[in-house]
Amino acid sequence: MNLAQALFSPRSVALVGASGDASKNTARPQRYLQKHGYAGRIFPVNPGRSVVFDLPCFKSVQEIEGKVDHAFIMTENVEGALEDCGRKGVPVASIFSDGFADAGAEGMARQARLVARARELGVRLLGPNSMGMINLTGRVALTVNAILEMESPPAGGASIVSQSGTMLGTVLSRGAARGVGFSKLVSVGNEADIGVGELVEFLAADPETRTIVLFLETVRDAARLAAGARAAHAAGKPVVAYKLGRSALGERLARSHTGALAGEDAALDAYFRDCGILRVDMLETLIEIGPLLAGRRPPNLTRAPRVAVVTTTGGGAASVVDRLGMAGIETATPGSNSPIVDLTMGRKSASYGAVLRELLQFPGCDAVLAVVGSSAQFHPQHAVEPVIEANGGAQRSAKPLAVFLTPQADKSLALLAEAGIAAFRTPEACADAFHAYFAWRTPSKSRNESPVEWPKDIPRKGRLSEFEAMALFAGLGVPIVDRAIASAPDYAHALPYPVALKILAAEVAHKSEAGGVILGIASRKDFEGKAKSLAKKGEPLLVQRMASGLAEAIIGYRDDPVVGPLAMVGAGGILAELYNDVVLRLAPVDEAGALEMIGQVKGFAVLRGYRGLPQGDVQSLARALVALSRLALCAGRPVREAEANPVIVKSDGVVAVDALAVMKEA
Amino acid sequence: MNLAQALFSPRSVALVGASGDASKNTARPQRYLQKHGYAGRIFPVNPGRSVVFDLPCFKSVQEIEGKVDHAFIMTENVEGALEDCGRKGVPVASIFSDGFADAGAEGMARQARLVARARELGVRLLGPNSMGMINLTGRVALTVNAILEMESPPAGGASIVSQSGTMLGTVLSRGAARGVGFSKLVSVGNEADIGVGELVEFLAADPETRTIVLFLETVRDAARLAAGARAAHAAGKPVVAYKLGRSALGERLARSHTGALAGEDAALDAYFRDCGILRVDMLETLIEIGPLLAGRRPPNLTRAPRVAVVTTTGGGAASVVDRLGMAGIETATPGSNSPIVDLTMGRKSASYGAVLRELLQFPGCDAVLAVVGSSAQFHPQHAVEPVIEANGGAQRSAKPLAVFLTPQADKSLALLAEAGIAAFRTPEACADAFHAYFAWRTPSKSRNESPVEWPKDIPRKGRLSEFEAMALFAGLGVPIVDRAIASAPDYAHALPYPVALKILAAEVAHKSEAGGVILGIASRKDFEGKAKSLAKKGEPLLVQRMASGLAEAIIGYRDDPVVGPLAMVGAGGILAELYNDVVLRLAPVDEAGALEMIGQVKGFAVLRGYRGLPQGDVQSLARALVALSRLALCAGRPVREAEANPVIVKSDGVVAVDALAVMKEA
Repeated sequence: MNLAQALFSPRSVALVGASGDASKNTARPQRYLQKHGYAGRIFPVNPGRSVVFDLPCFKSVQEIEGKVDHAFIMTENVEGALEDCGRKGVPVASIFSDGFADAGAEGMARQARLVARARELGVRLLGPNSMGMINLTGRVALTVNAILEMESPPAGGASIVSQSGTMLGTVLSRGAARGVGFSKLVSVGNEADIGVGELVEFLAADPETRTIVLFLETVRDAARLAAGARAAHAAGKPVVAYKLGRSALGERLARSHTGALAGEDAALDAYFRDCGILRVDMLETLIEIGPLLAGRRPPNLTRAPRVAVVTTTGGGAASVVDRLGMAGIETATPGSNSPIVDLTMGRKSASYGAVLRELLQFPGCDAVLAVVGSSAQFHPQHAVEPVIEANGGAQRSAKPLAVFLTPQADKSLALLAEAGIAAFRTPEACADAFHAYFAWRTPSKSRNESPVEWPKDIPRKGRLSEFEAMALFAGLGVPIVDRAIASAPDYAHALPYPVALKILAAEVAHKSEAGGVILGIASRKDFEGKAKSLAKKGEPLLVQRMASGLAEAIIGYRDDPVVGPLAMVGAGGILAELYNDVVLRLAPVDEAGALEMIGQVKGFAVLRGYRGLPQGDVQSLARALVALSRLALCAGRPVREAEANPVIVKSDGVVAVDALAVMKEA
Repeated sequence: MNLAQALFSPRSVALVGASGDASKNTARPQRYLQKHGYAGRIFPVNPGRSVVFDLPCFKSVQEIEGKVDHAFIMTENVEGALEDCGRKGVPVASIFSDGFADAGAEGMARQARLVARARELGVRLLGPNSMGMINLTGRVALTVNAILEMESPPAGGASIVSQSGTMLGTVLSRGAARGVGFSKLVSVGNEADIGVGELVEFLAADPETRTIVLFLETVRDAARLAAGARAAHAAGKPVVAYKLGRSALGERLARSHTGALAGEDAALDAYFRDCGILRVDMLETLIEIGPLLAGRRPPNLTRAPRVAVVTTTGGGAASVVDRLGMAGIETATPGSNSPIVDLTMGRKSASYGAVLRELLQFPGCDAVLAVVGSSAQFHPQHAVEPVIEANGGAQRSAKPLAVFLTPQADKSLALLAEAGIAAFRTPEACADAFHAYFAWRTPSKSRNESPVEWPKDIPRKGRLSEFEAMALFAGLGVPIVDRAIASAPDYAHALPYPVALKILAAEVAHKSEAGGVILGIASRKDFEGKAKSLAKKGEPLLVQRMASGLAEAIIGYRDDPVVGPLAMVGAGGILAELYNDVVLRLAPVDEAGALEMIGQVKGFAVLRGYRGLPQGDVQSLARALVALSRLALCAGRPVREAEANPVIVKSDGVVAVDALAVMKEA
C-alpha cells in the first residue's frame, strides 16, 4: 500500500481523540465513516474510554491490534499522538487539531518541530488544521466536515483539493443538489508536509479522477504544484483553480488566514498559465466546468475564440453572450450574419436538436453554447433530450458544449450532469467557464536552458550602481545606450553630444525626481559646468548619449517569493503604473513568448501603426526582454528585481537608457 | 378604474384568439388565470368556437356582455382585434402577437399604424410581442409564459418590468425555489405604447410594490424612464436594473433582438446614475438584492465604503471579501485590525448573534455581511435565527445587512427571505449587490437652467470650421487659446510668437495626421514661408499662440440618441482612446459634478501631485467642462458632437488649443 492508497483508501483508520459525545466535532469521523459505508476497520483511540458508540476504544494507537493505514488526529497533544503513530508504523496521519502555522510565530515553530519529528518517524502528515479527506468513489468519509450529514452525496469524476476545509462542504453540497458528484475531496490545512502539489500528483495518477479542482488562498510550493500540474497534463487531466487574493483586501485576508505569503495576483496568473492550470473567476464555475474540460487538451488559440449559440430564449442567450463579448469571445453562426440562432417560442422552423447538431459540426466555431428556457423546469427530459442526443452520448462531439438553463431546473441539470454535459446555473459562470477554457495553454516545456555565468566584476549583493546594472544587462544582451563614467576635475569623456548626466549613487531610485539627472546637454561648452553642479562633492558621474525614438517601454525582472522569476514588459513613462499596463510571464521567456507579451500591452498601439504612426521595432524589444529574463538562469539567482525604464523603441532597434538592479542579499 | 388598475388588476379579461387545444400557447392564459385563482371574469374570444374548455366563447370582443377591462390579443389579425376592442371601449390591450417592430422595416411601419389607430380609438397597448402581465399579489396570471405551470409562485414586494418575456419566468422560477416572491411582472415586448418608464411610474404608485426591478436590453424612452425613476425615488422605492449590451457583441445582439438602438453602455451607466437607478452586473443579483434596498435611500458616499464581516467559514467570507476589494470596498472591524470576525468551528468565543448585533451597531461601517457555513444546510432554523434576531425583526437594523450562505441551503434562504433579509447564493452576486448599493446616488435635480442662446454668426448645420467651433466654445465660457485668421497674400496677424498654423477646412477631422498643422513657428521670419506652404491654394489659415502646461485633457459633449446630452472628460493625447480613460455624465454638469468626474480620470494623477509633479488647475478644467456641457441648454440642441482636444492644463488656468463641433443636421 503506497502513500496515496493509505491517504485516500486506507483499509483501517485510527481516530485519535474520538469522542463518544455525538454533539462534538470529534465524534463525527466515526459517525461519518459508518454512515457513508466505510468497508475497512475503524479504531477509536481515547485513553478515557473503553467503547465509543458501538466500537471498542483503544488507549493508544500502539495498542491497536492489526495494521493502521491512516490515523486521524483530533487531540490537543498532537505531538504525543504522532509518537504513538510512529511507534505503530502508521504511514500517514491527518491532523485536524490546530494551533500551528495558523497561530502566529510560536505555532509556526511548533509546526516546524512536528514536521521534523514526523520525518524522523517516517509518518507523512496531512494538515495540521485539516478537516480531513473524503473519498466518495471509495466510500471513505474521514472528516469532521458537517457536510457529511448529507445522505449519499453523489460520486463523480472530479477531485478537489482545498485550502479551506469548509469550502469542501460548499462544493459538495452545491454539486449534490444538481447531480454533480466528486471522487476525492481533500482539506490540506496548513500543508505542513503533504501539500497541494503532491496531492495533484496523486490525483493525476488516480484512475477515478478525470479533472482536478483547486480551491486556493495562496500557493505554498509553486514548484511542486507546477510539477503536479505537468503530471496531470501528461495524464490528460485538466487542473482548474479558483484562487482568492485577487484584490489587495483579499490578499491581506488570505495572509491573515493562512499564515502564508499570498503573492501578487498577476504573478500567480502568469504562473497558472505557465503550468497549464485553468483559472476561473467564480466559485460555482469550479463545480460546473468539469464536463467541459474532461478528456480535453488546451486549445492554445492565438485568435479570438468563436462560440456558436442556439437558444429558445433571446434574453437568456444574451445574458451569456454579452459576457462572452466582455471577455473578447466572439459568436459565429453557419451561413448567417446573425450572432446567434434564436428559436423563440412559436417560431420554431427547425428542431432544436437539428440546429445543435449542425453547430457541433460547424467548422467555423470553437465551442457551442445551448441555452434552454422554461421547458427545462417543467419538462426536463423533453428539454434536455435533444441536447444529450445531439452531443452523441458516449462518443460525444469533438467540440466543447456548454448548456445554460434559464429557469430553476435542478432535474435538468442532473440529467445533463449524468450525460457528462457541462451545465450552468448562471450566465456569469457559463461565460467564465468559456473564458477559462479558451485561455487554457499547454504547460510550458520545463526550462533546462544552460545557466548564465555571473559577471566577475558585478557585486552579488545590495543595490547596483546604474553603471553596474547597465553592464549586467549589456552582458545578457540588452542593448544599452553608449555611456561612460566621467570624473573630476574636468569630467572628460569621449561620447558625442547631446548627452545626459546622472549621479551614480546606487541608493537613489528615482533619480529624475531627486534632481540627479540633467538631460539634453548639447555641447562640451555647457557640459563641464553642469557636471560640477550635479557632482556636489566632485564624485564621478554617469554620462550617456541622448536617445530618442517612437515610444518608451519598460522591461523588468522580479524573483517573486511565491512563484519565482518573472519577466515583465509594459508601456513606458507613467503609463505602466497609472494604467497597470504591464504583462507578466514566468522567466525566462523565449522570443515568441516575449512577442506575445508585447502584443498584450495596450500602450504599444503606438508601435503598431496606430493612427498612421511609424511602426516600432517590437522584434528588438522582444529580444531585449528575452535577454533580461535570462537573469532567471544566473546561478543562485542573486537578483531580486531588475528593470530598464525607459527602453527607447525606435523604428530600427531599441536602447535602454536607464537600468536598476537590486540583489536579494542586502 | 384607471389605466394601472385595468393593466394590473382587471375585473374582466378578453382572451382574443384563445385556443381550446391545451397544447397551444394560446390556450395558456385561460388555463393560467384559472389555475392561479383569478377572481374576475374571463371571456375567451374565437370566431370558430362556442366554448373554450369550460367557458363560453365569443365571436368578437364586441359581443361580450358586460365590461372588458383588459384584452389579451393572440390572433394574427391584431388590427381587427384592436378595432373590436375600440368599439367595445376596452381601455387596454396586451398584444402577444408578433410581426411588428421585431420584424424589420415593414413590421416597424405596421406597428406605427397600429399605435396611431389605437390612439384614435383610445385603447392603450402593452406590446406587441409581449408575453403579458402577472400580478401575483392580485392573482392575475394574464400571460403565455410557461412559468405559470408552477404551483403557487410566492408573492412578494418586488415588481419587475422586462424587455425579455422569457426572463420573467427565469426570475420568478429562481425566486420561488428560495422563497423570494414578486408582486407584478410585466413583459413589455416592443413597447409600442406603454413603455418601461410609464410602468415604473405605475409601480411607484402601487402600494404592493416596494422595489422595482428592470431587465433591459435597451432604453427606448430615456426621458420617460428617468421621470419614472424620479417618481419611484420620491415614493421611497428603489429601482434596480440589469442591462444587457455591455460588450460590443452584446450590444449588437440587443439591437438585432429588439429592433431598437442599443446605445453606448457607458452612456447608459451615466444615465442610470443620474436618475438614481442602481445597476447590477449579475442576473441573480436582481432576485436577491430586493431586501437590501427596500425602504432605503441612496447612501451617496463620497469615500470608500466599509463593510463589517462576521463568518463561520474563513474561505466563504474570503470569497465575498476578495470581490468587495476588487470593487474598491473596504472592511472594518470594531476595535481590531483584523479584516473580518472569523468565528471558525470549534473556536467560538462569542456567539454569532452577539457579534452580529455589535457589527450592526458599529458606527465604523456602512453595511454588514454575515456569512454562514454548513449549518445553513442541515439546521436552517438554528443557523439563521441569530441573524434574524440580531437584525431585529420588523424594527430592523438601520444598517444594510446581507447574508451569504456557503452551502446549498434553500430552506435557510427562504427563512431569511421571509424575515426580509437579503440572502445571497453566490459570493459574486453578494459583492455585486454591495457594489450597486454603494454606487447608488440620489437622482439629480431636474435641469431647469435658463436656455443658452445660439450665437447668430455660427451655422446650425454641418461641421463647423475650427475657428467657428472655437468661437462657439468661447461664447459658452471655455478658455480658448489666442487665435486669428490670417489671409493671403502675406498672412499678417498680431499674435506674439511662437505660433501654430492650421488649415481651416471643416472637413478635415484629424488635421495633424493629414499634415494640416505646423506647430512651434518661432518668428515672423519663418512664418510667411510656412503659411504659404500650408495654404496650397492661397486660402486663409488659422493662427494660434503656442501653449504649454502640465498635462493635456480632453473635454467633450455628445447628444446620445438614447440617453441625450452627455459631458465627457478624459486624459488627453492618445490616453483617452487607448485606455478608455474617460468619464461620462449627463449634461449639463455643475462644477461639483465636473470635479467628481475629473477625480475619476486615472491619467489625471499627473495633475494631482503624482511623484512630486506640480499640481494642475483642476478647478479651471472643471469650469471649462461645465461651460462646454451647456451645449445641452442650447435651444433645439443642434450639436451632435463637440470636443476640445487637447485642453492644456497649467498650474494656473486651462486653455483649449483645438476645437471640433458637428451639428445634427448635415
